[in-house]
Amino acid sequence: MTDPAAPEPGPGSAATPAPEPAPAPRRGRGRPAARDGGSGPGARDRILQAARAEFAARGYDKTSIRGIAKKAGVDPALVHHYFGTKEQVFETAIEKSFEPALDLPDLMTQDPGGAGELLARHFFTIWENPVTRAPLLAVVRSAVTNETAAALLRGFVLRRLLGRVAGELDVPDARFRVELAVSQLLGIVMLRYVVKIEPMASADIEDIVAAVAPVIQRHLTGP
Amino acid sequence: MTDPAAPEPGPGSAATPAPEPAPAPRRGRGRPAARDGGSGPGARDRILQAARAEFAARGYDKTSIRGIAKKAGVDPALVHHYFGTKEQVFETAIEKSFEPALDLPDLMTQDPGGAGELLARHFFTIWENPVTRAPLLAVVRSAVTNETAAALLRGFVLRRLLGRVAGELDVPDARFRVELAVSQLLGIVMLRYVVKIEPMASADIEDIVAAVAPVIQRHLTGP
Repeated sequence: MTDPAAPEPGPGSAATPAPEPAPAPRRGRGRPAARDGGSGPGARDRILQAARAEFAARGYDKTSIRGIAKKAGVDPALVHHYFGTKEQVFETAIEKSFEPALDLPDLMTQDPGGAGELLARHFFTIWENPVTRAPLLAVVRSAVTNETAAALLRGFVLRRLLGRVAGELDVPDARFRVELAVSQLLGIVMLRYVVKIEPMASADIEDIVAAVAPVIQRHLTGP
Repeated sequence: MTDPAAPEPGPGSAATPAPEPAPAPRRGRGRPAARDGGSGPGARDRILQAARAEFAARGYDKTSIRGIAKKAGVDPALVHHYFGTKEQVFETAIEKSFEPALDLPDLMTQDPGGAGELLARHFFTIWENPVTRAPLLAVVRSAVTNETAAALLRGFVLRRLLGRVAGELDVPDARFRVELAVSQLLGIVMLRYVVKIEPMASADIEDIVAAVAPVIQRHLTGP
């Protein structure tokens, strides 16, 4: 999930902590890390964890670089140094949040007729786990209320997730089909985890998978 | 769009403004309207319009009684007087926003096999019209970020909209089926109007209806 084109943050490793991590700036803002700003080994990960927690709890609008820095126990300058602007912190946090989702099995190679169930099961395995659900909920909440967050999600999801699935389909309107399938899944996310409406909110996940698998299948490979 | 059951704001008409409209309080908070608080005929509707506009533009969290009053050109006390708390203003605004959606044709009486298309078409007629879309988008945005707003939506949607459709189905898991159908539609709302992802955002609505009608049908009446 780390963008292979992005520069690595620094030479230090967790096993042999470097005395000064000297992280390479990710984008723009070449401000040096404060020596006393909490910039030890693991600072980058700590900042990213704090960022995800803050975005999850407050949404994009109410999250600040200062708040992230405070939670991570570092100087705000270090957050800028590693990640750039708030928008860029959010983008990196999003990519981390989507890592489990991108670890998607090949849908069409083994059993094309089972693609709908495979996708539904993969999707809900991630959403049923509170650890992987929380950051995704944060992304949904932020995208719904903030255009910057929506644009980042749009760019990322289009580029990586939908493109990946559509690439497996051998039809001209593959992207549209994938979006129809994702709509069904995302709508359930809204009712089950966000609005928490009954009986959807406490339905057995197997009943949900059984109900949506044929629908996903139809969207992906149907007439 | 005015609720026929709600008390009218006052006896005055636009032609002969009453010196004191003496509006009947809708819920609790029997605070009298300020004499100079903009409480003329139509004040109640003006407040409600202002409330919908404010909730749509800012979401539930950032909207205040004061801001609604300012937009409507009335004293904040009058907003409290007619509608009670911010939560109650929001609830009334939601009900107004959902009126077009509640004007739903009977799905199963004429042609049960066409229920899916009928529901999809009714749904997107409302969402494709910017006038009816804006307040609904506001409700979605508010519910996603605020638990109070989510609870109000949950209560209202459960009680009125889903119950109404489920009541037409002669199956034991009717409510769950309706929620599966609504999930498909709501997911498209998210991708098309909120995240605005392509090609969904600019797809021909007829293509979308054609793609989801059989899915809705399956959810409502399928195996």
